[in-house]
Amino acid sequence: MLKAFFTPQSVAVIGAAREPGKLGYGVLSNILKYGYTGQVYPINPKADQILGLKCYPTVLDVPGPIELAIIVIPNKFVPQVMEECGKKGVQGAIIISAGFRESGMDGIKLEHQVLDIAKRYGIRVVGPNCLGIISTHTPLNASFAAGMPPKGSIAFMSQSGALCTAILDWALAKEIGFSHFVSLGNKADVDEVDLLQAWKDDKHSRVIIVYMEGLRDGQKFMEVARQVTQHTPVIAVKSGNTAAGSRAVSSHTGSLAGSERAYQAAFHQTGVLRATSIEQLFDYSLAFAYQPELKGRNIAIVTNAGGPGIMATDALESSGMKLATLEPETIETLRQGLPAAANVYNPVDVIGDALADRYEHALKAVLQDKNVHGVLVILTPQVYTQIEETAEVVGRLAALYGKPVLACFMGEEKVGPGIKILNRYSIPNYPFPERAVGAFRAMAAFSERRQRPAPQYERFEVDRERVAQIFARARSEGRVTLGDAESREIMEAYGLRIPRSILARTVEEAVEAADSIGYPVVMKIASPDILHKSDIGGVRLNVANAEQVRDLFDLLIFRAQRYMPEAQIWGVLVQEMVAKGKEVIIGVNRDPQFGPLLMFGLGGIYVEVLKDVTFRIAPVSREEAVEMIDEIRSYHLLRGVRGEKPSDLDAIVDAILRVSQLVTDFPEIVEMDINPLMVHEAGKGAVAVDMRFVLKEKESEE
Amino acid sequence: MLKAFFTPQSVAVIGAAREPGKLGYGVLSNILKYGYTGQVYPINPKADQILGLKCYPTVLDVPGPIELAIIVIPNKFVPQVMEECGKKGVQGAIIISAGFRESGMDGIKLEHQVLDIAKRYGIRVVGPNCLGIISTHTPLNASFAAGMPPKGSIAFMSQSGALCTAILDWALAKEIGFSHFVSLGNKADVDEVDLLQAWKDDKHSRVIIVYMEGLRDGQKFMEVARQVTQHTPVIAVKSGNTAAGSRAVSSHTGSLAGSERAYQAAFHQTGVLRATSIEQLFDYSLAFAYQPELKGRNIAIVTNAGGPGIMATDALESSGMKLATLEPETIETLRQGLPAAANVYNPVDVIGDALADRYEHALKAVLQDKNVHGVLVILTPQVYTQIEETAEVVGRLAALYGKPVLACFMGEEKVGPGIKILNRYSIPNYPFPERAVGAFRAMAAFSERRQRPAPQYERFEVDRERVAQIFARARSEGRVTLGDAESREIMEAYGLRIPRSILARTVEEAVEAADSIGYPVVMKIASPDILHKSDIGGVRLNVANAEQVRDLFDLLIFRAQRYMPEAQIWGVLVQEMVAKGKEVIIGVNRDPQFGPLLMFGLGGIYVEVLKDVTFRIAPVSREEAVEMIDEIRSYHLLRGVRGEKPSDLDAIVDAILRVSQLVTDFPEIVEMDINPLMVHEAGKGAVAVDMRFVLKEKESEE
Repeated sequence: MLKAFFTPQSVAVIGAAREPGKLGYGVLSNILKYGYTGQVYPINPKADQILGLKCYPTVLDVPGPIELAIIVIPNKFVPQVMEECGKKGVQGAIIISAGFRESGMDGIKLEHQVLDIAKRYGIRVVGPNCLGIISTHTPLNASFAAGMPPKGSIAFMSQSGALCTAILDWALAKEIGFSHFVSLGNKADVDEVDLLQAWKDDKHSRVIIVYMEGLRDGQKFMEVARQVTQHTPVIAVKSGNTAAGSRAVSSHTGSLAGSERAYQAAFHQTGVLRATSIEQLFDYSLAFAYQPELKGRNIAIVTNAGGPGIMATDALESSGMKLATLEPETIETLRQGLPAAANVYNPVDVIGDALADRYEHALKAVLQDKNVHGVLVILTPQVYTQIEETAEVVGRLAALYGKPVLACFMGEEKVGPGIKILNRYSIPNYPFPERAVGAFRAMAAFSERRQRPAPQYERFEVDRERVAQIFARARSEGRVTLGDAESREIMEAYGLRIPRSILARTVEEAVEAADSIGYPVVMKIASPDILHKSDIGGVRLNVANAEQVRDLFDLLIFRAQRYMPEAQIWGVLVQEMVAKGKEVIIGVNRDPQFGPLLMFGLGGIYVEVLKDVTFRIAPVSREEAVEMIDEIRSYHLLRGVRGEKPSDLDAIVDAILRVSQLVTDFPEIVEMDINPLMVHEAGKGAVAVDMRFVLKEKESEE
Repeated sequence: MLKAFFTPQSVAVIGAAREPGKLGYGVLSNILKYGYTGQVYPINPKADQILGLKCYPTVLDVPGPIELAIIVIPNKFVPQVMEECGKKGVQGAIIISAGFRESGMDGIKLEHQVLDIAKRYGIRVVGPNCLGIISTHTPLNASFAAGMPPKGSIAFMSQSGALCTAILDWALAKEIGFSHFVSLGNKADVDEVDLLQAWKDDKHSRVIIVYMEGLRDGQKFMEVARQVTQHTPVIAVKSGNTAAGSRAVSSHTGSLAGSERAYQAAFHQTGVLRATSIEQLFDYSLAFAYQPELKGRNIAIVTNAGGPGIMATDALESSGMKLATLEPETIETLRQGLPAAANVYNPVDVIGDALADRYEHALKAVLQDKNVHGVLVILTPQVYTQIEETAEVVGRLAALYGKPVLACFMGEEKVGPGIKILNRYSIPNYPFPERAVGAFRAMAAFSERRQRPAPQYERFEVDRERVAQIFARARSEGRVTLGDAESREIMEAYGLRIPRSILARTVEEAVEAADSIGYPVVMKIASPDILHKSDIGGVRLNVANAEQVRDLFDLLIFRAQRYMPEAQIWGVLVQEMVAKGKEVIIGVNRDPQFGPLLMFGLGGIYVEVLKDVTFRIAPVSREEAVEMIDEIRSYHLLRGVRGEKPSDLDAIVDAILRVSQLVTDFPEIVEMDINPLMVHEAGKGAVAVDMRFVLKEKESEE
């Protein structure tokens, strides 16, 4: 997939220039300078020859086939050139030229025009408004970047071209190797999803990293990302995650950023690791690129300095990782080989005068320990420290045990040569222990994710047709909200328990209903137009007898007519009074990028005041539903505190799954909630007491 | 203060060695090599001359005075040498030698012995088991460090000598300047508090940074830190802040780490900025060392790259800083000087092809804007970017407006020369925008802290004598807990409202009491030995009439005798039934380092399940008490949600202050809580319903 971009047989540079200051020169010269071995055709009607290559006026004049075209000409000429590319049979085009969507209305039109041409001819497009593409293993540097990173196994894509220049500059100095380096620009065609798919089975790429400001199709991203993270770690920085940041994204890219919560949920559900900064992005990616899988959370620390060992321990503990408990034999081995003042428990302190041999002894011991999943080696440059020799020891031993080893040689000048040696052995070095621990944390998250089975989306037996009819009727009547009876019918159709309930159109019907349900009952005004019934005094709990039922029926009807004279009134709903339990909320909002965003939390102040809620994109699996419940801070209240019995967690999971199925089946639901879902003791179920639906406006249908 | 360590007229190196591999050689050679201009005396009975200096057998043989002695000899000889130093009139000794407290019982004894000698002669001691001291402005390098950092304005102290070596190595490469660089070692004498005091008015030190694993005297640290942070920022990394980390500290230093909560509270209350890593420590300190004060939270961003601008915006927003709203004139100025595609609102995007002049225009405009308190300049190395020229522009302009400017020139190789120029202009550069924003955040915290008036500790009129008597009696009876009546008496003595309450020894007294208080009443078993009365059914609310009072009196006495036959029983307490309100808890625990640690939170699940609590070291000021209430997540519940009236916050503040005064007045209180303090509507006060005291065991008195 997208082979034309990464391993083309032939490339044309449309807009190749003779003047070294120009981008069209830079691109051509990068292709040649960094060893591309396929056919290269400069295209420039005003030149015969550039950089020793014969120049052609248009691609149509080129004798052989052209797989990839790189376009570096003023924006207005791009459509014509794309036509020519189409006729020539070009398969991929990198449009470096700017002046498209990012520059206002005319640019948007131009971009559409170019894309139409591309579609007509089946040309895939990267850009416009991008820096280009580098594939180091081909090798092909089809960009105007100022350099070529070393060959490596990090595949990088970025929505920001400027960021690419900074990262490249940094990577060159640090000798960080990449497999691919792609500036996505405006993402008119090829986007993150395409590249994830393309790199999924790329043998050169051990880790995929992404800088993004927004996605076009969140659901598609999730589908693909979920597959990729089964074998390749994907790490993303998503910027614009605060209100001000999101405004900045809009003014920068003209695109609407989806909600931060939805991104957070989507990354979590698909196993995409989120980095909060570019620094973290690379901290993580080096560990994945260079080291074997971390198969558990237990880390051993070997250090020649107490302080940094403590800092590493703090970082491990506070990030949910564990300080490995060493086996008795390991401790014995350490005791024998280390001086008396050393600490033979984890963190293993070989103390300040340790030479390389002491590191070797300690490192070998902990790497052999079956309780240890990974090792962090800390070194400070003390008087007798053998920096380079120790680096050699670390490099040699790390390769033997199939366990990841990360290093933290602290300092810069004196430790520099040691770090270079580590680099040669593919041991990532982090300047401070906290950052190494962060990388371990990411590695653990990736492995744990892989060990989980792929999510299964259970489907319950439901009466989908009945719900479809209710929605159809509402929309035929021009309504976007539903009446209580309709909402209840939907709940029933999807197997959610609701209170027994009878619609009474007359006083006599109400009394009859209450008698048959049994006292006390609840009475509610029944109207499709009154959403917040309590606000107009339209709900009464604990109605105790027939006399009260009579009085209230009249009162509720009277109030509804008085406060909302326009409302259509169906009568009064007489309901079973649901026994007190724990009130929880299940809500759904439709995110523009990701679709149905499920929310779960405890009702009342927990949601409203403490904002103690959690989110997932629907559909969710059973495991994800369980996770949602586990995640809220007030989870303990559901487990039962102070001698209370635990609540029926299975019933909540069941309700979440049924709601998930409902909103997945019916994209026309833009908002819904069950508030409260009254949850009883374990084994006694949960009842949806009140619910609310908002449907998509007919006009806004896609 | 401690002048002998930083600007001595003369130094002796006791244990000066001729062999370059030895520490005693390293120290002497560092003193000479890095330009110390005072008298230097090598002390070594076996040598005549070292490094061209005449050698003396002992300090007593030296003709002139010796202000500072640096001791680099085997541990067992240190006491004798200290005696000689004492006789010679030496004022300060840096004991580099190891083999003291860190190495077991014998070492501890030796350390005590040395300290006794030092005290006898009035010699201050740094170490033992340390790297030494560097004062760059003297200049004096009295350490065996492998180098000398440039002159600068960062004063650094570290409990970890190994960390010093790493930081020095890094600082040399980055050309970070220090004023002082102190390895504290075992802190037998001179500790963090002494150095804070010494550097408080040091003209060379603009910022003081500390790596610590534990403090000896928390209250003293607070007292001094509070003064220092009034004009000099103090930044601390405190490691061992998790359970595992704290165990690692103990095994490393043999000292008990105080509670993380207490450190957190102490730093907060004294304005010490806490860094979570060494990286952050230096990120912050560079900003303070190089740039003027940040006088508000509004930051302008000038960038040539959209992506990093968004990341900076996210970081600002999520850290509580603000993206400055630019004045209309500024926006107009920007519009005129920048191309149409630029973004003239904050973040100001001068776009990818910006040369230095465009940066100059934008930077000048935002620096002049009165809404802007500080500026972050972001640069990515794009094709036309003038890295060095732009650095010159940033450096020149930053000096003119008295506002802090931080830079984020992203990359490494190409931007390197620009960063060097920035460095020359004292503009700190951060590799990623998030880290620059972190530094701004620290600067804002420092300024805001300074603008706050020094805390005033109000003292209420209380009956201290009465409480002293209660404690005296309890302790004379060998009790560490108090009875209900005693606790109530203490509350009354300190002006805390309690329910009306009468101790009844007989049934008739109980009825009489209830009649006079008015029904309903609460009845509780009265016994100094029964702490958890509810657990034995010893409390009954809502007692409605005289008949119930009679029955219950007998029942409570019967139960108490049955379940706790040993307990001394005073009778039954008949109490006013306190009207329902919001239940809060005020608790106190005594921290080994910092003393009384006050806790505040809402009662019930908020404390127990949600752990929604906040801490301060007592005494607290009124502002601090208000802060405590503001800080808890459930604060909104006290403000009133869903139409409830707000609770009486003033009454809570009053109660916190009175408890603060109580536990400050009586260090023998090791634990106490008021649970619940029942808080009524604003203006209606708060009542301490139940309280509990634990006093110090007589045996453990200090």
